[in-house]
Amino acid sequence: MSLLSKKAVVLLSGGIDSTTTLAIARDTGFSTYALSFDYGQRHGVELSAARRVAKSLGATAHLVLKLELGKIGGSALTDRIDVPKRAGLATTKPGIPVTYVPARNTIFLSYALAWAEVLDAFEIFIGVTAVDYSEYPDCRPEYIAAFEAMANLATKTGVEGRGRFKIQTPLIRLSKADIINRGMALGVDYAITHSCYDPSPDGSACGQCDSCRYREKGFQEAGLVDPVCDRQG
Amino acid sequence: MSLLSKKAVVLLSGGIDSTTTLAIARDTGFSTYALSFDYGQRHGVELSAARRVAKSLGATAHLVLKLELGKIGGSALTDRIDVPKRAGLATTKPGIPVTYVPARNTIFLSYALAWAEVLDAFEIFIGVTAVDYSEYPDCRPEYIAAFEAMANLATKTGVEGRGRFKIQTPLIRLSKADIINRGMALGVDYAITHSCYDPSPDGSACGQCDSCRYREKGFQEAGLVDPVCDRQG
Repeated sequence: MSLLSKKAVVLLSGGIDSTTTLAIARDTGFSTYALSFDYGQRHGVELSAARRVAKSLGATAHLVLKLELGKIGGSALTDRIDVPKRAGLATTKPGIPVTYVPARNTIFLSYALAWAEVLDAFEIFIGVTAVDYSEYPDCRPEYIAAFEAMANLATKTGVEGRGRFKIQTPLIRLSKADIINRGMALGVDYAITHSCYDPSPDGSACGQCDSCRYREKGFQEAGLVDPVCDRQG
Repeated sequence: MSLLSKKAVVLLSGGIDSTTTLAIARDTGFSTYALSFDYGQRHGVELSAARRVAKSLGATAHLVLKLELGKIGGSALTDRIDVPKRAGLATTKPGIPVTYVPARNTIFLSYALAWAEVLDAFEIFIGVTAVDYSEYPDCRPEYIAAFEAMANLATKTGVEGRGRFKIQTPLIRLSKADIINRGMALGVDYAITHSCYDPSPDGSACGQCDSCRYREKGFQEAGLVDPVCDRQG
């Protein structure tokens, strides 16, 4: 099997991190199978971004699955809890943010594992980073390692020994600025991505939530202008 | 906190194993939160059984989540692959059956973990057994242990050290006959449960699939008559 025909499932939200991850998977030579979720997140506009990104980066397939996470609750992203808006990152309180969605990456990776097994793919890419947003428990290297160990015990593929599932986290040690620089080097068009947790009905970013702030900080530190802001203003 | 107020999430399909598991969780003193999935399985009739069972065994809540597993495919239970019908269990071929659904228990347990975290519950019950149906990779003790380890790294609850999630598998070493005897001792009414992978439109069991065969064998070995067969004929 040539490297080009190897398949990878890539979790894709349409934000900077998952978009860069998809670009890296493609650059590594994988045929990419992008997986997105419609989980009642406030920012439904991110699914349009995911579709644009999957097309732009030549994903072989793009599957969007509807999840009923809102019925479980427990997060500002799926519940009626207010998304925090702050004047700047300096005021961010320590601890796990209210935008944490219980077991979200575990649910996302579980679906990715199921699809990978059906596709006969062994690589699953997820754009977690333990640098910014390090407060999310399911973005840490020890969590990823534990998921990978579990995945190889959970599946027919793992048990039959035809290969080992690998959870690839190419961004885990990168800052937002590093991620943006990496993506730019791979020709990513960040104008088509979306980050805001609480966009206006027309899809424009609030500029105030954690996700907008980290994005702004990332572009600033990379010495670049965010093409989304450039387009909007 | 009294033992009676402790919460447990219990995965409930409405079959013999999960019904007995719910009865055991209740008998142990937990306030039970039953979780079922509508995942495009052929036997949609099992959701009616799950609802009857949750009511009959006094579950505090019963949540049914719709999953789009059919879009991922790879199983006789969600795809157009034929469910095997055999004359008897003796002819069962070794290996993982076509009724295996890729990463199913991992997806189910991930949702259970999310709900447990929101509820502030630390116990998750799943009616897996490594005796009958031992060919399913995600029914083995080593898989369950790996999931539990991962769960405690994945979550805010685990990271903050407020408690440890425990995946409870009270049936894992029991034969189908042992399970039925245990349930009978707890007053379970198996007449309201459902096992068949391929029921008729009226909901009656085919009597030929693996699940029907294991059920029949279980009641025979327990020296009992299946109340479902008794009712039907």
